[in-house]
This record gives sequence, structure tokens and C-alpha cells, in this order.
Amino acid sequence: MVELKSTERIDDLQRNNLKIIQDTERFCFGMDAVLLSGFAKAKKGDKVLDLGTGTGIIPILMSAKTDAEHLTALEIQPESADMAMRSVMLNDLQNKIDIKTGDIKEASRIFGKASFDVVTSNPPYMISGHGEANPDDAKAIARHEVLCTLDDVVREASACLKPNGHFYMVHRPFRLGEIFAAMEKYKLRVKEMRMVHPFVDKEPNMVLIGACKGGNQGIKIAPPLIVYKEQGVYTDEIYEVYGY
Amino acid sequence: MVELKSTERIDDLQRNNLKIIQDTERFCFGMDAVLLSGFAKAKKGDKVLDLGTGTGIIPILMSAKTDAEHLTALEIQPESADMAMRSVMLNDLQNKIDIKTGDIKEASRIFGKASFDVVTSNPPYMISGHGEANPDDAKAIARHEVLCTLDDVVREASACLKPNGHFYMVHRPFRLGEIFAAMEKYKLRVKEMRMVHPFVDKEPNMVLIGACKGGNQGIKIAPPLIVYKEQGVYTDEIYEVYGY
Repeated sequence: MVELKSTERIDDLQRNNLKIIQDTERFCFGMDAVLLSGFAKAKKGDKVLDLGTGTGIIPILMSAKTDAEHLTALEIQPESADMAMRSVMLNDLQNKIDIKTGDIKEASRIFGKASFDVVTSNPPYMISGHGEANPDDAKAIARHEVLCTLDDVVREASACLKPNGHFYMVHRPFRLGEIFAAMEKYKLRVKEMRMVHPFVDKEPNMVLIGACKGGNQGIKIAPPLIVYKEQGVYTDEIYEVYGY
Repeated sequence: MVELKSTERIDDLQRNNLKIIQDTERFCFGMDAVLLSGFAKAKKGDKVLDLGTGTGIIPILMSAKTDAEHLTALEIQPESADMAMRSVMLNDLQNKIDIKTGDIKEASRIFGKASFDVVTSNPPYMISGHGEANPDDAKAIARHEVLCTLDDVVREASACLKPNGHFYMVHRPFRLGEIFAAMEKYKLRVKEMRMVHPFVDKEPNMVLIGACKGGNQGIKIAPPLIVYKEQGVYTDEIYEVYGY
């Protein structure tokens, strides 16, 4: 049996009986991670790497949603990595998911260049120095670019990918210009994009992006993903992604 | 009174009694131009340049929708430029709109560098050599990059703009990667973006983009612009843009 700390709880992921440990005092996963796990694709035989995995939510969900052969996840905060490892054990996924404690900035050195078919990331969204209370705080590290920047994430994703490998990321629409520039810089071509709008008449608060290492120009933009059809009521698509 | 050729007709623009001459055998303006004229902003005193004006639809509508002081429009096809000039006369806008026959690739040489506050363009969307029937054909020139490329349009827009001037363009979402790369190349920062979807559950078929010459990173993405609420019935927003 997996041990829990006093501030931890086990949540049911509503899919294949999967469960996850979360610490109410640390960063808990959001809808962004769940949407990314549904947006990212992995084929039979694919090796997948998740950069900055936090609770391990993305590889755990992708183990059920895709045909990926193996998923590796990197997390810099030892307490989060330990919690993610216990979630992997709780789901008996030790043969399919490896959790590694380490720095995103070192990912291609840790795992080797061109060693994955798919890379995923739900990185910190906010530029550091914009008012985070305490840069040592676990939540600040998950939300703000305290320990890694967008440039670091895209550079390492590209370096870790095999030619024609795919990178899937969720981020803030506000930063789309920087995202395109970083992708271009590191030879990743944006091929898919989907905006996530809380309501149909509201600005998007997330963007899902799929890029390919190499390949032609040309982006496929999906219909908008609308979260709520009315206050408090999810759209059918969101219910589907969450697997209810 | 303005003279019409046998294949020309006068259309009512449903706004301020404005009218436009169109030739049924040439390229007629589409919803893209109308949406761009509503998306683009021009303040009191602004000098505006439209690159590749065709029928003159964008400056004619912007003369009514914005506070622009003066609008200049460039068109390479003499027959189109002549028709646009007659539309300007028909609306008695000779003091506000100049139509100039000339090549987009030469715009900053023709008008001088840093000479406009706002540049607009509804350029050809399609890469040339992808099956246009006849590259001399007026419609092919309006639709395909026969005489100018996306790179040409963005380069000249940037060169014609004053510092902190704004560039508004409508294009195909498919080409968003190239659009971001060209903007970056010519020091235009994408600041606004809006996807236009025929229906709420369909992929976008147009994207409206606003960029600034210089300035900070950070993009404001608008709610999706949905064209039809059901087959054959426009959404309220489209009726509003069209000014019915």
C-alpha cells in the first residue's frame, strides 16, 4: 500500500480506475493538464517524455488515453517527483511510467538527444519577477518561470525529440508570439493549434499546441474548445475529455 | 455621374449610403475584407494605407467606420484601380481616399518609409503554383501569390509604418506559422488575433491579425468570431459588422 502524508489525498481520475495523489498545500493539476493529455497523440511503440510533470498527471492519463509504449516524466521538485512516483505505484504502472527527479534545462543531457517520439509539457506560464510571493514556494515554481523559461522548455523538447517527433504543449494565448518564435528557433514547426475558451463569447485562457521536429509549413487550427455551455455546466466535449 | 462597363454593377454597402462598383467577371470582395474593415482601428488624424485594395472596399468602409484622416490604397491591376477610383468618386470621397496604381513590392519606395500610422491588407492567400488556372487572370492575381508573396506584403507594411504604427491583415489560419515568422522578421509584433469560424464547431477559415511596429510581447486573442448560428442565418455580430 502506498503511504500518504497528512496533507495529501487520493483523487479518482474517472478513467480506467486511475487515481492520483495530490497535496492540498502544493500545486494541484488543472484542466490544462487534462486537456493536454487528450490533445497529445502517441502511437503504438512511441516513447514519450513529459517535461515538468508535477503530480505526474499527464503521463498517468496518457498511459490510458494513448498507445504509448513507455512514458518518462521529469520533475525538478523532489517532493513532487516522490508524490508522482507513489501515484505510479498506486496505479501499478511502474513498468510503463518512469519518474525522474531533474532539471528541464538538462533534459537532453539526462536522457540523450533524439531519444523520444513525443514530448509533452504543461510548463510554468508566467514570466518570473511579476509578483510571485516567494520564488522558493512549490506553487510559484510550478506557475512562474523561476527555474526554467519557455525558451528552455522548447529547446530541450526539440533536443530530446527524434526527427519528425512531436511536441505537445499547453500555454497561455498571451504568449503565442514568443511560442512561435521559440519553436522557429529550435526547428519545431507548429502544425496544430486549439484555443480553449471558458465560454463561447470569451477570450481564450489556454492554447493547445502541437509541433513537429522538421516538416512543412501549414497549421491546422481546430474549432474552439469551449469549456462551459452555461455557468457551472460543462460542454459535452469537456465531459468527454474528463471521461465521465 | 460615374460610368459603368457592361459587366459592372453598383452594390449598396449598407452603411452611410456607401456604394461600390464591382465587376462580375473580376474578383469581387468577400466577407474577409468587410471583417478586416471592422477589425482595423484608425484614430483621428491617422493616415492609412491599404496594400492590394482591389475594388477599394477596405478604405471605403474604413472611411465610414473609423476616424482616419486620410486613406491611400495601392492596386497593381489598372482595371481594378480604375474601378476603385470610380467608386471613390461615386461616394464623393475624393478628398479622403487616394487610389494609386502600383506594385506592393514597391510600396515603401512609392510612398516613402515610415509615412503611415496604419497599414491594412487583404492579400492573396494562396501560394502560387498550386493550381491557379491562368496566372494573368485578374482573379488568380487577387487570390494567389502570383505578383507578391506574404513576405513582400509584411516587409512593405513594416517599411511604410511609422514607429508604433499598426498593421491589420486578414489571412488563412493555415499560414499562421509563416505569418508569425514574417512579422518577427520585419519587426512587427503581433498584438491581436481573432479566428473566424463559419460555425462554432468548425475550423477557422480566416484569421484577423493586428501587429505593432515595435512594442512588447503579449497577444490579446479575441473570442472566436462565428459567422453562422445556423445554416443560412448569420450571428448577430456578423449582422452588426455588415451594418444592417
